[in-house]
Amino acid sequence: MQRLTIAPEQLTPPHIHLTTAQHHYLCRVLRLRVGDRFIAMDGGGHWWLAALTEAPLQAVVLEAMHAHNELPRPVILLIAMPKGGGMDDLLPQVTELGVAEIVPVVSDRTLLKPSPQKVERWQRIVREAAEQSERQHIPIVHPPQPLMDALKRWRGEASPMSDATDCLPPTSPASCYICTERGVSRHLLGVLLTQHSATPAAPIVIATGPEGGWTEAEVAGAIALGFQPVTLGRRILRAVTAPVVALSLVTAVLEQD
Amino acid sequence: MQRLTIAPEQLTPPHIHLTTAQHHYLCRVLRLRVGDRFIAMDGGGHWWLAALTEAPLQAVVLEAMHAHNELPRPVILLIAMPKGGGMDDLLPQVTELGVAEIVPVVSDRTLLKPSPQKVERWQRIVREAAEQSERQHIPIVHPPQPLMDALKRWRGEASPMSDATDCLPPTSPASCYICTERGVSRHLLGVLLTQHSATPAAPIVIATGPEGGWTEAEVAGAIALGFQPVTLGRRILRAVTAPVVALSLVTAVLEQD
Repeated sequence: MQRLTIAPEQLTPPHIHLTTAQHHYLCRVLRLRVGDRFIAMDGGGHWWLAALTEAPLQAVVLEAMHAHNELPRPVILLIAMPKGGGMDDLLPQVTELGVAEIVPVVSDRTLLKPSPQKVERWQRIVREAAEQSERQHIPIVHPPQPLMDALKRWRGEASPMSDATDCLPPTSPASCYICTERGVSRHLLGVLLTQHSATPAAPIVIATGPEGGWTEAEVAGAIALGFQPVTLGRRILRAVTAPVVALSLVTAVLEQD
Repeated sequence: MQRLTIAPEQLTPPHIHLTTAQHHYLCRVLRLRVGDRFIAMDGGGHWWLAALTEAPLQAVVLEAMHAHNELPRPVILLIAMPKGGGMDDLLPQVTELGVAEIVPVVSDRTLLKPSPQKVERWQRIVREAAEQSERQHIPIVHPPQPLMDALKRWRGEASPMSDATDCLPPTSPASCYICTERGVSRHLLGVLLTQHSATPAAPIVIATGPEGGWTEAEVAGAIALGFQPVTLGRRILRAVTAPVVALSLVTAVLEQD
């Protein structure tokens, strides 16, 4: 069924007040007529089965819907921005896989300097991917920030996220990992399988590196802040592939039962 | 260090006979000079440390190299070709992750009809990705074929692959999986963790579907041929994402120790 994202204030039960653009989208693009049904989503986890009414710019809620496609633990990806259009490629993939928040980070070897328009574009890409993959939550794309700032804000200490986002309960310390080059660290999968049952509700924070990898100082800084170094395997993964691989493993461990 | 793929017949130990194009690449593009070193790879698992010599179009092998970035079990992906440039996007990712063979398949809902030039392009993309990710083997890209033909050729019965490829010992029955939409099947990760230790050397064959998914008849046909239905999670994955997710899980299970 066709889906439409609405703002919470557009809903006055049982009515949904549509914007002109939304009405145009439903009637002209999707070719819905009065009485036709669609799914209204607020991007915050709520879905409603709705129908177009005869009143101008109005739809009516038929019933609340309960969908359960979200991961049981919020997953936050700290992504060293790949060069070129790499973010455009990876954002739909990590959205399909269930990411809650995306933090583009600037590391020592990051070359990309995104404009504010670029960040808006990323949020738009994520919103569209969330609708297509039937997510209840639209992932948050944070403004790009220096790696150390991001590591400090999302680190795995007690109550680290009081100023971060209302997605994350401030009392729940996060499990934090930094993906490093092929080396002596344990594989992320083995670590997750061992640790998941001990922290079944805590957020999971994973940092993936840029082309050329993190510097030694960056890895040391992350470890000092409570991030556990992990590996994703024996081959070199590009900066656009590593976040998808890391999230594939997290998602699978959380949903394999 | 810079890498160059050579054909086996170019090597007459200790000499490597370079083509004009390879010589141009080493001297003009990579700007190597006489005495400078590079890595020669034959795409079949052999690497040599080599150096440019004064003789025209010639290099000399300094020593054989031993790299171990390949997966312990060959993984064959049967990929229902995504529309547009989807194959171009996913081929580098699955190559980085260690795929051995890629079989583009035509299913009931496949829209793409690739030209022979397109298939040559895919093999070139895979070769470049294998070099960049320091693979010893260059994955094979098979010609596109109907799903049922591919399922029969790579099915998990005893000695199924005698006519298939020299990568696969004919005595080793493959573990075969077909990824289906969110449903009642077990998660691929749970299945792999349970079954891997029982078949530590057998090839792994995984089929991933097109936009819109497999038809019921296709899934039933695959199951009849010995493919086990599995799921990749609770959300809808695009046809370009599913192979990357499936391979991420296989790679991680094979390498987590």
